[in-house]
Amino acid sequence: MFLGSDTGSPAGSPAATAVFAAVLTEGPVSRVSLARRLGLSSAAVTKAARPLIDLGYLHELAATERTGPGAGRPASPLAVRADREFFLGVKITADELIGVVCDLRAQVRTTARRPLTDPDVEAVLTEVGRLADDLLIAFSGDRTRVRRLGLALSGDVDRTTGLVRYSPFLHWRDVPLGRLAAERTGFAVTVENDVKALTAAEHWFGEGVRADSFALVTVGTGIGCGLVVNGRLVSGSYGVAGEIGHLAVDATGPDCHCGGRGCVEAIAGTDAIVAQARDHTGRPDLTIDEAVALARCGHEEVRAVFTRAGSAIGCGIAAVANLVGPTRIVVSGEGLAAYDLFDTHIRTSFERQAFGAAARCPLSIRPLPFEEWARGAAAVSIQSLVVP
Amino acid sequence: MFLGSDTGSPAGSPAATAVFAAVLTEGPVSRVSLARRLGLSSAAVTKAARPLIDLGYLHELAATERTGPGAGRPASPLAVRADREFFLGVKITADELIGVVCDLRAQVRTTARRPLTDPDVEAVLTEVGRLADDLLIAFSGDRTRVRRLGLALSGDVDRTTGLVRYSPFLHWRDVPLGRLAAERTGFAVTVENDVKALTAAEHWFGEGVRADSFALVTVGTGIGCGLVVNGRLVSGSYGVAGEIGHLAVDATGPDCHCGGRGCVEAIAGTDAIVAQARDHTGRPDLTIDEAVALARCGHEEVRAVFTRAGSAIGCGIAAVANLVGPTRIVVSGEGLAAYDLFDTHIRTSFERQAFGAAARCPLSIRPLPFEEWARGAAAVSIQSLVVP
Repeated sequence: MFLGSDTGSPAGSPAATAVFAAVLTEGPVSRVSLARRLGLSSAAVTKAARPLIDLGYLHELAATERTGPGAGRPASPLAVRADREFFLGVKITADELIGVVCDLRAQVRTTARRPLTDPDVEAVLTEVGRLADDLLIAFSGDRTRVRRLGLALSGDVDRTTGLVRYSPFLHWRDVPLGRLAAERTGFAVTVENDVKALTAAEHWFGEGVRADSFALVTVGTGIGCGLVVNGRLVSGSYGVAGEIGHLAVDATGPDCHCGGRGCVEAIAGTDAIVAQARDHTGRPDLTIDEAVALARCGHEEVRAVFTRAGSAIGCGIAAVANLVGPTRIVVSGEGLAAYDLFDTHIRTSFERQAFGAAARCPLSIRPLPFEEWARGAAAVSIQSLVVP
Repeated sequence: MFLGSDTGSPAGSPAATAVFAAVLTEGPVSRVSLARRLGLSSAAVTKAARPLIDLGYLHELAATERTGPGAGRPASPLAVRADREFFLGVKITADELIGVVCDLRAQVRTTARRPLTDPDVEAVLTEVGRLADDLLIAFSGDRTRVRRLGLALSGDVDRTTGLVRYSPFLHWRDVPLGRLAAERTGFAVTVENDVKALTAAEHWFGEGVRADSFALVTVGTGIGCGLVVNGRLVSGSYGVAGEIGHLAVDATGPDCHCGGRGCVEAIAGTDAIVAQARDHTGRPDLTIDEAVALARCGHEEVRAVFTRAGSAIGCGIAAVANLVGPTRIVVSGEGLAAYDLFDTHIRTSFERQAFGAAARCPLSIRPLPFEEWARGAAAVSIQSLVVP
């Protein structure tokens, strides 16, 4: 994280961090439950919570009556003050910036977008600054409580140092985006890979809460996956993990830009779908929206392209279930705007390939507005407040 | 673990467990290094090690001279007394029991085998007892120091309770093997799935030592995988994990007994190889050994069966690298007796499908004698001593 202003963490000890994270992700919770969950004494929980209460991040709810065996002092659950601090989140795509303001519970309060016409680092930083201004102007809450900015983009990102090692679509290599954006905006800045940021949001504030392991699969231009195993994001010993798009699922399938053959992405990525639809229609300028429209109108060959894509995605998801065994899997991404064309085929293929009890893993398949990616960026920023 | 005799753990506290495990897996190590590695004070390390030294599990090596800046008291590294205790390990297959005696560092001291003609639980227990007797008679060390027995078999095993939920090749369901074997033999008994047991041996005593994450892939009748991520074995939320044999790698491939299509095991499992070789040769009674011999003699179609199998295995291994990103991958199993026919194709296919830096993950491909499986069973027994 890069400090652009006075942004010390309110969580001063490991115990305080654990208490803050638990109350933030799990909602109002009593000190007794916290102590049991975290393996701390009640006194330690009280001590850890005190500065968080004093600084206004946590507060005590009105005491609830306890009845039944062992009823003693009434319990006053600890809860988060969602409006204690606000966070900017920005997703950077090839041609647009998508921004949000979130509260401490990662609820979106305001959104804004800016087009991006120049992938040059300086130009992107300028537009990020302008988008932040736009968001603050539109935001009706207390602007003095916005001190942090999370950025997310696809590619190889080192969250620890804020370095963008490689961004294919911006043609960046080794750009110290965290430091530069902090200097430019004055905010404390985090930078994360977009799929990992989205996984962080689901892990802390979505379907991954309380799951010891879970997976998020994104479908769109790229096909990606964030994995949480034993409560921690899997990052890969060589910086590669969750590359579901490059699992080989068809030995006689098309070559992939990665050098592999029959990869999920080479069959089901947006570019692959468009290319196949163009072949079948003989229309070299067909767009993805037109391909979706044709499939919906019953164009059999184009429909078959989506069927094959859904099957490939289902095989990839089954591979995640068979190898890692997550508690649940969320499938999302801008590609799922064509949800109706994919859904059945993803499920059928997953159910066929999931091994034994792995088929019990629930799939949540749902479209994902771009603002959700920006919320993911904000979620990483929230994490940087809680876990220094 | 099932207590058949006085088998309390010498590690009485979490700190003692951590110290014992670190010295056992990493070899002689100074108290200063231990304190740094484990986040303990030097005094806490000394206190934790004391009972382990008193009971003879650890000892202090002669002090080594320290020179250079900061040289203070000479360091006396802590080391394991390998012959303080010995462990029986038995792998149960459909037609044979393979047994070993290992020392505390999982070095094999004695081996023995017994044929198995009857899959009935009582008959297997009787043979396990006889094999244990054979091993003790052949063992030249101190038999009074053998108190624990590890069992390993393929199938769905609950290590915590010693229950064999399902063993396809023995036709067992819900057999409390741990309890029954403890009653029969008087040893403290552990039961584990064989691939997980082998993974435990590599994790503590083999190529997985010091690796934060690694994978073991086994090739044979079944194709399995043990995964360690963030230092812990991945067990799967629904009891399914590491099922590399049931990844779909060929959309037009053969149906698999699991209900899937184009699974790695349906192409590269021993039965699949034999079936394909029989088709190509028109010899309905061809054995795997004969298929290997034909391929080695240059029978092109049978050779192609192994090529295709190696490619499918390589795709499966690449899937592990792309999704989880282990530090290293060990590939082994009885199927690799035909190592020369597989090796190149596994590597070529892995390198083609591994995404970007995931291709840097080293593969150790090596044959695996059945005694190694038994050693895996013993390694789980050692773990039960160290981690109560």
